[in-house]
This record gives sequence, structure tokens and C-alpha cells, in this order.
Amino acid sequence: MVEIIAPRTGTAFRLAKGQRLTVIDPEGEQVSDMVAFAQSDPREAISSGRSLDYASKLFLTTGDPIYSNCSNVMLRIVEDDVGRHDFLLTPCSKDTFRIIYGDEDPHRGCFGNLAEALAPFGIQADQIPVAFNIFMNVQIDGETGAFTVEAPKSRAGDKIVVEAQMDLIVGLTACSALQSNNYAFKPIHYSIDGEASSG
Amino acid sequence: MVEIIAPRTGTAFRLAKGQRLTVIDPEGEQVSDMVAFAQSDPREAISSGRSLDYASKLFLTTGDPIYSNCSNVMLRIVEDDVGRHDFLLTPCSKDTFRIIYGDEDPHRGCFGNLAEALAPFGIQADQIPVAFNIFMNVQIDGETGAFTVEAPKSRAGDKIVVEAQMDLIVGLTACSALQSNNYAFKPIHYSIDGEASSG
Repeated sequence: MVEIIAPRTGTAFRLAKGQRLTVIDPEGEQVSDMVAFAQSDPREAISSGRSLDYASKLFLTTGDPIYSNCSNVMLRIVEDDVGRHDFLLTPCSKDTFRIIYGDEDPHRGCFGNLAEALAPFGIQADQIPVAFNIFMNVQIDGETGAFTVEAPKSRAGDKIVVEAQMDLIVGLTACSALQSNNYAFKPIHYSIDGEASSG
Repeated sequence: MVEIIAPRTGTAFRLAKGQRLTVIDPEGEQVSDMVAFAQSDPREAISSGRSLDYASKLFLTTGDPIYSNCSNVMLRIVEDDVGRHDFLLTPCSKDTFRIIYGDEDPHRGCFGNLAEALAPFGIQADQIPVAFNIFMNVQIDGETGAFTVEAPKSRAGDKIVVEAQMDLIVGLTACSALQSNNYAFKPIHYSIDGEASSG
């Protein structure tokens, strides 16, 4: 069953070890920020710093693991139609819109959406790590380190599939930042498939 | 007064708002991992994701702020002899040495050194964020995202100076990873200067 995340909103849910999460961009050029926490202890969360270090690359894709801050594999990417996602930047937030866009009455962004969705699981806002920003297209000048946020490479119907390697709480959004989504806010679709594996 | 961090060790200390921390590479080609937490609430810590996002670049240098996970400026870089530091990767750890180097009896690394040094301040290991890795030279292929850890560009006596923008607990190491330090473990020197400013 496909669930719908409305534009500029977010959700959270449990994903058992062995289950697969499919994240679909139904209209194209829409980012979805994903975070994940261990059900057994939400102080364990996905870690960009460990995942990128162990992979020796910035752009993760099919076959790559996403590690936690305890160096356990939390998720593995098992299918990827797009091959370009970001794992450098935090979810957009009131502060993003204030600092980067100069908004005076900023939207709460993915950060606010994730904070609300994760609160019932006992996860506090300040525990939200750098997200795995699905379909987010950050173009980097390797020489200077300067980067720009470009339109996602995802087209209508493109998807990524990740498989839980432990019992997780997952936060997922339809991203709220203009630049990240080629200046149009669209929904994100997702589905959860498979049975929980034992252990 | 210059303090000495012995090779493959770390320390932690308070740095009051307005004080300046000078980190010196006395022999050259030696990395120092730095983390910082708010004294008022150590759940507030430096955030690579926010700092890089707001700067729109990967390599921070003189004039650049280091933001917290609450989007407050924690530190500002006020002098920088080298201009090449890393803010992507976690401190090296037992897991780094196990996963990347294949060590069977791995050193605890900067992560273990920081965890021990920060424990008396009530900071737990799983709160240690992506560090600002002073003098660490990560070369990035912007096209593919592949990166390599190269010898630091710092030469004997080179330094960086950061100024605290709030009352902080700082963790600082002489990095323990072979690759990061051109295969030789050296000390790091540091000094704290200036009076705490009011407020």
C-alpha cells in the first residue's frame, strides 16, 4: 500500500529489521529527507560522518550501507533509480529559511516536520542528525569546496529502496526548501514491504 | 601558556565566550579533531550539516562561523594559516580502524580519546558529533563524490585560532589515524587566550 506525504509535511513510522522502505518521487524533482533511529535506543541514529568515511565517497547508492553513530549498519540501499542523493546537509528548518533565504516568518521545514513526527517516539528535536536527503542534488566543486543545490535528477516515478538492518524508527518528509525541489513543492509516496525477520 | 596533547591522545576543557583557542601543529602534517558543546546544555553541539549548509561550502576558514545543531554560532574562525580542514568525517575510532584498516586489535582513536576526556563533563560517547577536523586534508572528486585522505597541508608551527561565541566545553585531540597524518603520529599544541566576555 502506497502512503502519501503531502507537500511540505513529514511522517514517522517503525521499520522492522528485514523490511524494505520504497520512497517514490511521484511527480519528479522532489526531495525526501530521511532519518532513522534504533528502536532499542534512539540515541543510536544514522551518521553521515561514519557512513561517508567508511564508503570513501559522498554519494551513496545501490549496495551501500548507512551506518549509525555506533558504527552499526542501520539500512542498506538495495535499489536506486537516481543515484544522486545528499548526505552532507541538515534538514531544512526555520533557521535555514531565516539564514539562507532571509524569510521573516519562516516555515518550520523538514526539521520541524520531523521533530513533530518523531516526538511520539520519544525522540527530541536536538537528536535529529544530518539526514539522508533522498533525491537531493548537491553539486560540489572539489577544488574549492563550494557547492550549490540543484534540481533533483529524479523524474516522475523514480524510486529508491532501503532495507532495514535493525529495528528502526524512520522519519521521512516531502522537503520544504524551494531550492532543493526546483522551486515547486510536491508530495512524496512511500511503501513498506516484507515481513520482519527474526532477531 | 602552551599545552601539549601527546600523540594519539586527547583532552577537553572549558572555553568561555570571548576566549580564543589557538591550535598549533608543532611538527607539521598533524590533524587535530575538535568538537564543542554548549556549557548550558551539552545536547547543543557543533553541527557540520548546519555549518556547511549556511556557508554553501565544504571548507571553512577565516571569518566562517561554526554553528550548533540549534543554529547558534558556537565558534568563529579568526585566523587560519592553512585553509584546509575537514568537516565531513567522524573522529577515527576502533570502528574506523576495524572497517577501513582491518586492524584486529584497534586503537580507540580520537573517538575513544574524546569520549574519555568529555565524560567528566557529563557528555556521553554517543553525543560526539562529526568533528571539525583541523588540518585534515580530504581531497574530493566533485563529479563522482569519491574522496581520499591526503597528507595535511600544515607545516611546522602553522595554527588556527577560533573564538568562542558562547560558553563551551571543547574536546581536542592529536589524531590517531595513520592516513590522516601522513603515517606519523605527532603532538598537537594549544593555548587559550583572552578574558571571558560578559553575557
